[in-house]
Amino acid sequence: MTQQKTTSLDQAQSPYFFGIDVGGTGIKIGLTDDQGATLGYSAIDTLEPQGPADAMRRVAEACRGILGKLGLDPSRVVRAGLGTPGSQDIRKGMLIEPPNHPHWHHFPIVKSLEESLKLPVSYANDANAAAFGEFWIGTGKIHDSMVLLTLGTGVGGGVIIDNELVVGRNSFGGECGHMIIDPSPEARLCAWGGGRGHLEAYASASGVTARAREELQAGAKSLLASQIDKITAKRIFEAAEQGDPWSLKFIEQTGDYLAIGITSMVHMVDPGLVVLGGAMNFGGPNSPTGQRFLDSVRRGFEARTFQNVQAGTHIEFASLGADAGYIGAAGIARSDYHKAL
Amino acid sequence: MTQQKTTSLDQAQSPYFFGIDVGGTGIKIGLTDDQGATLGYSAIDTLEPQGPADAMRRVAEACRGILGKLGLDPSRVVRAGLGTPGSQDIRKGMLIEPPNHPHWHHFPIVKSLEESLKLPVSYANDANAAAFGEFWIGTGKIHDSMVLLTLGTGVGGGVIIDNELVVGRNSFGGECGHMIIDPSPEARLCAWGGGRGHLEAYASASGVTARAREELQAGAKSLLASQIDKITAKRIFEAAEQGDPWSLKFIEQTGDYLAIGITSMVHMVDPGLVVLGGAMNFGGPNSPTGQRFLDSVRRGFEARTFQNVQAGTHIEFASLGADAGYIGAAGIARSDYHKAL
Repeated sequence: MTQQKTTSLDQAQSPYFFGIDVGGTGIKIGLTDDQGATLGYSAIDTLEPQGPADAMRRVAEACRGILGKLGLDPSRVVRAGLGTPGSQDIRKGMLIEPPNHPHWHHFPIVKSLEESLKLPVSYANDANAAAFGEFWIGTGKIHDSMVLLTLGTGVGGGVIIDNELVVGRNSFGGECGHMIIDPSPEARLCAWGGGRGHLEAYASASGVTARAREELQAGAKSLLASQIDKITAKRIFEAAEQGDPWSLKFIEQTGDYLAIGITSMVHMVDPGLVVLGGAMNFGGPNSPTGQRFLDSVRRGFEARTFQNVQAGTHIEFASLGADAGYIGAAGIARSDYHKAL
Repeated sequence: MTQQKTTSLDQAQSPYFFGIDVGGTGIKIGLTDDQGATLGYSAIDTLEPQGPADAMRRVAEACRGILGKLGLDPSRVVRAGLGTPGSQDIRKGMLIEPPNHPHWHHFPIVKSLEESLKLPVSYANDANAAAFGEFWIGTGKIHDSMVLLTLGTGVGGGVIIDNELVVGRNSFGGECGHMIIDPSPEARLCAWGGGRGHLEAYASASGVTARAREELQAGAKSLLASQIDKITAKRIFEAAEQGDPWSLKFIEQTGDYLAIGITSMVHMVDPGLVVLGGAMNFGGPNSPTGQRFLDSVRRGFEARTFQNVQAGTHIEFASLGADAGYIGAAGIARSDYHKAL
């Protein structure tokens, strides 16, 4: 929660938007105004095995609940935005085969939500939606273009160029976690069958855990050497905060892997801003370790790019936390709404 | 020359555009109609040491020459597009420090051409302009998005997303030759001081020549082993056409390096189409060796991406040859003209 979730409403007739962020276990639902302020919020369980139609009915119910609580006329809400994990066909409004939603495959989720909610729905990849949230009212709010990396179990992303989200021909835009940072035959394997050397295999929470376990098993000296089986990114962060030199070095190496991918991203679309989001941020902006992590990303980028490009490119932490997804989904709905006017 | 350069004009009042492509030794100038057909063409020497203002005056003269020859009222031409090598500040219309134009540094080239030509001028990076040309009437003409790689002395590029060229915050958009394909400390060095492992160091004509020389000096068995000092990409192509196994393998390895970069490009912006342009194409579409080169790029991409992404992504040779730059410059002018209407 980065902002106040309920405010008293002024009655000016600016449009409102629902933003819905579907995760593996929970669904976040927010109502925002035209400036991105959250007016109402609700979270429900995904209940994945009950299937997507049931979930979309419960989302619509939760939306009505938000309106009821605020005493708001439903006509004030003009559009909803929906973010879900891939794979998906954004233009067709279809879920394809989201790996953590085995009961939701090949489902026309946009049509389902539109019928339940009686509103037009804009559709996005969840990480793309988070990117749009940060772009709209977060770290990217004064920028025209931006790349977001979401560092979580995997590495997702979103690319915004001149105020437009890059959706991609195959709804694969912004899948920066699958950019190649190591072409060698012994590079780490992509967990999704995408081959070797993808950024995600190095800089996601699972990549980090696997790398750490291997180094510790190979005899690295660390506070964590005795708890190899319990290793997580969070524990590495905690050990680093306690001054464990191996953990600090390991975190900086992770930053350097990210820097390789970021260099390629910047040299391709030159966004001026790269934002690091997601929970796997080693403490993030408010911790010395997080700052060290960010510095290692910046240093690695500086070593691989040109002086003028480096001077004109910011690398920053995200600022909306776990709210970025529903806020961005609302923002995409807003963008589509204003375009259609 | 891929199309007829002079046609009889119909007198319908659709707008015409000049496209100007500035190179190190020559400047190509074309007049196109609203559909991209070239109505008139002229080429002049760059005469680099005489400076950019002189060159822009001679460009304007050549433009008037084209109109005179066609007996065309100058008012039919509504805008010009100008492509030059980087570095540049596109938004400010400035050349910064183009390495092959030492006498042209820090020059307001757009203002200079606008004054000489008495027309509004759109400005682009030369490789970006070539990308836009292929996108407008070449290999990309039925696509909404596209990435072009220009394989020449260096590797340039251009990225078009949903009909818009990605210019970038630092006028560095589409510099795909500087994406990282090898992060190792012994990776090849970027010729421009950008660090190690950039695609250009492997897949440009100079990268190819350096790599070949090293392999042959290390004892590779090849028709070319006796002429190491004279090695060029063209000679490697010729040897491959004669069936030299080392040359064929070398060309396929070059294709695989490109595939690493292309995988990252596709996973970032998912354009649906990647086009290989430039002269360093090992014979291109009309030769068996060129086809083998293209096949190796496609194979390398297939090995590193996901099945649905591979199925939805085309990798093709460019089709406009050396005309892509001026055609694309005219196309960018056309795009800006129609946007302003």
